[in-house]
Amino acid sequence: MADDEADDARRVIELLSEAECLELLGAGGLGRLVYNGRYGPTALPIVYKIDEGSIVLGTWDPVLFDEDLRTGISEAEYQVAVEADQIDVEAREGWIVLAQGAAHHLDTEAERAPFTDAGLEPWIEGVSAHYIRVNPTRIWGNRTRKA
Amino acid sequence: MADDEADDARRVIELLSEAECLELLGAGGLGRLVYNGRYGPTALPIVYKIDEGSIVLGTWDPVLFDEDLRTGISEAEYQVAVEADQIDVEAREGWIVLAQGAAHHLDTEAERAPFTDAGLEPWIEGVSAHYIRVNPTRIWGNRTRKA
Repeated sequence: MADDEADDARRVIELLSEAECLELLGAGGLGRLVYNGRYGPTALPIVYKIDEGSIVLGTWDPVLFDEDLRTGISEAEYQVAVEADQIDVEAREGWIVLAQGAAHHLDTEAERAPFTDAGLEPWIEGVSAHYIRVNPTRIWGNRTRKA
Repeated sequence: MADDEADDARRVIELLSEAECLELLGAGGLGRLVYNGRYGPTALPIVYKIDEGSIVLGTWDPVLFDEDLRTGISEAEYQVAVEADQIDVEAREGWIVLAQGAAHHLDTEAERAPFTDAGLEPWIEGVSAHYIRVNPTRIWGNRTRKA
């Protein structure tokens, strides 16, 4: 048992399999797009959904997409990650999943069409939606729970 | 007014001042440590608190600290960021703050002492606490709210 009186259950931390990670991501929702930006390591909240094993996210921050997340080389894609977690600090429990891979910008209408009414659209008016697909090359996660 | 019937209020997005960002971080709690790890861009949930304008966070993932987040050069510190957000996807509102700076590892007992009972300790037994201080060189945030 833990020494802390306010916290009388032992916790364990367990690695999640890739299948468990994908299942946790499957519900979609709030995550964070993680990348190395011009001012250093960067994470921004995004809304994502899973589409055939890849992660599609929508964002619209003009600061971001004018200058970041493209290598400047045709066909060469920028390395990013999508992080999602559900952590209860009071209960000291929760999970995190981190999916790392290249950012493929959905630049054509045909690529964007399936996602234009999928809950990924901008929350504010007057900006264009921007969609990115991440095909994870590494998925990692863990869960902390009461033993 | 937005076209979406389920969402009848207009939203605005506003940049936050550095003071507003620090005020939002002031409550401490759940955030994410963001850095460029050996497998690419990485974000991990951490618990942090503000201490005299800098951010002190606790973590304990042995995978992390054996190999990442140190430059290998004495006195040269690794660039990281701390991200915190509070986003309500249903309401389409919320804020994010991103604080970027160098990771200073609290390697001495004297540095660690003020934080050993500050809510930053490991949630699981048998691992040592590891504390990092980030002195932000850039703090950025925004808030999306109903207009």
